[in-house]
Amino acid sequence: MTSRQDFEQLDASDPLASLRDLFDLPEGLIYLDGNSLGAMPRTTAARMQRVIQSEWGRDLIQSWNKAGWMDLPRRVGDKIARLVGVGPGEVVVADSTSVNLFKVLSAAMRIVKEDQPHRHVILSETTNFPSDLYIAESLAQVHGFRLELAEAGAIPSRLSDQVAVLLLTQVNYRTGRLHHMAALTRAAHRAGTLAIWDLAHSTGALPVNLMGDGSSEEAADFAVGCGYKFLNGGPGAPAFVWCHPRHVERSWQPLSGWLGHSAPFEFTPGYRPAPDIGRYLCGTPPVLSLAALECGVDSLLAAEPMGGLEALREKSIALSESFIHLAEERCAGFGLSLVTPRESGQRGSQVSFAHAHGYPIMQALIARRVIGDFRAPDLLRFGITPIYTRYVDVWDAVEQLRAVLDGEEWRDARFNARGIVT
Amino acid sequence: MTSRQDFEQLDASDPLASLRDLFDLPEGLIYLDGNSLGAMPRTTAARMQRVIQSEWGRDLIQSWNKAGWMDLPRRVGDKIARLVGVGPGEVVVADSTSVNLFKVLSAAMRIVKEDQPHRHVILSETTNFPSDLYIAESLAQVHGFRLELAEAGAIPSRLSDQVAVLLLTQVNYRTGRLHHMAALTRAAHRAGTLAIWDLAHSTGALPVNLMGDGSSEEAADFAVGCGYKFLNGGPGAPAFVWCHPRHVERSWQPLSGWLGHSAPFEFTPGYRPAPDIGRYLCGTPPVLSLAALECGVDSLLAAEPMGGLEALREKSIALSESFIHLAEERCAGFGLSLVTPRESGQRGSQVSFAHAHGYPIMQALIARRVIGDFRAPDLLRFGITPIYTRYVDVWDAVEQLRAVLDGEEWRDARFNARGIVT
Repeated sequence: MTSRQDFEQLDASDPLASLRDLFDLPEGLIYLDGNSLGAMPRTTAARMQRVIQSEWGRDLIQSWNKAGWMDLPRRVGDKIARLVGVGPGEVVVADSTSVNLFKVLSAAMRIVKEDQPHRHVILSETTNFPSDLYIAESLAQVHGFRLELAEAGAIPSRLSDQVAVLLLTQVNYRTGRLHHMAALTRAAHRAGTLAIWDLAHSTGALPVNLMGDGSSEEAADFAVGCGYKFLNGGPGAPAFVWCHPRHVERSWQPLSGWLGHSAPFEFTPGYRPAPDIGRYLCGTPPVLSLAALECGVDSLLAAEPMGGLEALREKSIALSESFIHLAEERCAGFGLSLVTPRESGQRGSQVSFAHAHGYPIMQALIARRVIGDFRAPDLLRFGITPIYTRYVDVWDAVEQLRAVLDGEEWRDARFNARGIVT
Repeated sequence: MTSRQDFEQLDASDPLASLRDLFDLPEGLIYLDGNSLGAMPRTTAARMQRVIQSEWGRDLIQSWNKAGWMDLPRRVGDKIARLVGVGPGEVVVADSTSVNLFKVLSAAMRIVKEDQPHRHVILSETTNFPSDLYIAESLAQVHGFRLELAEAGAIPSRLSDQVAVLLLTQVNYRTGRLHHMAALTRAAHRAGTLAIWDLAHSTGALPVNLMGDGSSEEAADFAVGCGYKFLNGGPGAPAFVWCHPRHVERSWQPLSGWLGHSAPFEFTPGYRPAPDIGRYLCGTPPVLSLAALECGVDSLLAAEPMGGLEALREKSIALSESFIHLAEERCAGFGLSLVTPRESGQRGSQVSFAHAHGYPIMQALIARRVIGDFRAPDLLRFGITPIYTRYVDVWDAVEQLRAVLDGEEWRDARFNARGIVT
């Protein structure tokens, strides 16, 4: 694999290549930031016009039933369920990832409080996404728990009879490291600890299997995930939430808004949570955002006849292997060091390199229309989105990266002022 | 005022009549449900296409800065601030009304816990919107408080040195009764109680003045409000939240997501809330929904040169007075009884009548293309949205109501099965 032609050939023989046509990507842009904001499906604009002009504009309030608006949180949830290895009726779409994490962490802490009141530790990873840690910190404070953090490798050894809940993000947002979900869930359960998984950087990028081998030991307890990354739901798309059926009926979460009530339209006093995952809903469904998210999720389901996430995962690994090998070969001597695990089984769907001048380098790369992003202090992140990233994109991105590293442009002052949000 | 011509004349001489052109309303439909879901502004569809196709589709991740996505919660918040009598930088748009209520009620309870730890009562209104009561019930349970409910008239007498927080919705969703916000806030403060106002049925419908006369006695402490009713933000539009500047810096709310952090893009461990109202943000801004909401809010700001909410309020009163008088006169003897206060100063922007057969009557009315809604057990609700409701709509709606009451169609079986969501 030493020329652009080789990569063109890989695209030509890629059975998943046509999936890229589901998306409307700008000509000449190499987009490697789908782990931050997924690209726009071609169906979204027309769907949104229909929702706005016909469902809202023409049918107004009647669309809550007539257009199925009220079902959207469950309907889109059922579709996401297929991507994370759980059944219909087990997932709902609502609120943001952080708000949903607040719900499931509250529910988990309450279960532990009832069953094992001596446990007061929430265990998480030092480099977990800060919002997850902020939410955990807040709930720990309110309920007299303690948030303890450990490096990824040390987590199993930190499990103990003090740990109430293990809270992890399956794929690390910085390093792209992929946790072994089933093994860690099993370790948690053996220690008597509940396991919550944040699937923000994994849902839609790789096969997620919340049920493990189906045993109660390997099945996770709760999960949340993000709609706007690999699910392509649009900027700030709503998030999803799952609770293992064994916990649903006894689980209680404090954001007890009317849509989580068992009969919201009876407008009765006294909160009576829905008997199912519906109790994790809170306010009125965000219809416009939900409709856009459904288009994004549908684009992933369209891959099912071609092998679905298993096939996409294979392609993701091939793309990221290529990216790593090419970058290390063609950018050798320019100070890049691989941060993402080299072993593909320990990697999500992104490649991260550290570089002392990471920020201006990424800015210069973006100016050349290769879009990755930067995370302080020194991280260049490249998202691999197998549903629309081509092999040739990997070749071209590395060539541009080499050109940037080899040149002077990133020393330009305009690339050295911080402050962008990516 | 005894003929349709009289009402046509009122429209012809209405200085606000042209504001209806800001909305795209279906021909021949009389829409009296803007208190549940506001109508679609003409600008929304084009704006959404731009956000989706150009900002998201073309510019992708860069739009967080380039298109100002990250500013949307504050920018739209500043616009809403003008409608509720507070200053720029005091309101943000985020999450749902219920989630925001959870935030401010948590914050208020914590302040009281610190300053007056003996107070453990949340006082609200028996017929407050159930979601507000469910959230209050949940927080009371978590923190060892007690939720007490009183009829509207009895609220001042129930204030005591036990009451930590008074939680009221300014306009009652069932009866349309309008509370005297300044007087009740003053009464609460004199009793040492904090006042939280839910502005769901008032923002955009009438002038709201959270600051009262400007004194600390009359200024409310916290407020939340809804984006999809009189703000015309679209189905499930995000909500807003306000905290009096005197409380912001010491106030703490538990939904400590990353966007509420003082420096979210530093990705630092340890939650450090933003110094301002930004600490009431939580997850990533829902950009599509925020853009649609901005169009809705802009339609109200477009009324400012014509007298703004004061002028709209005058029209709202004229419309609802007409509705009440016409309905009582032309539907006399058909069993309607007025539920909304007759005194216009005690009324929001809706008219509610009770009728023993309210449900099938409303269904028959909807079949005749007059859209109001029904609330169990017997309530017919008619929302008056002065920015797009015409005088002639009031005449026509009452004529259709009379025809329904006078006829047999509502006894039709298809109108007698319950189950619609309105």
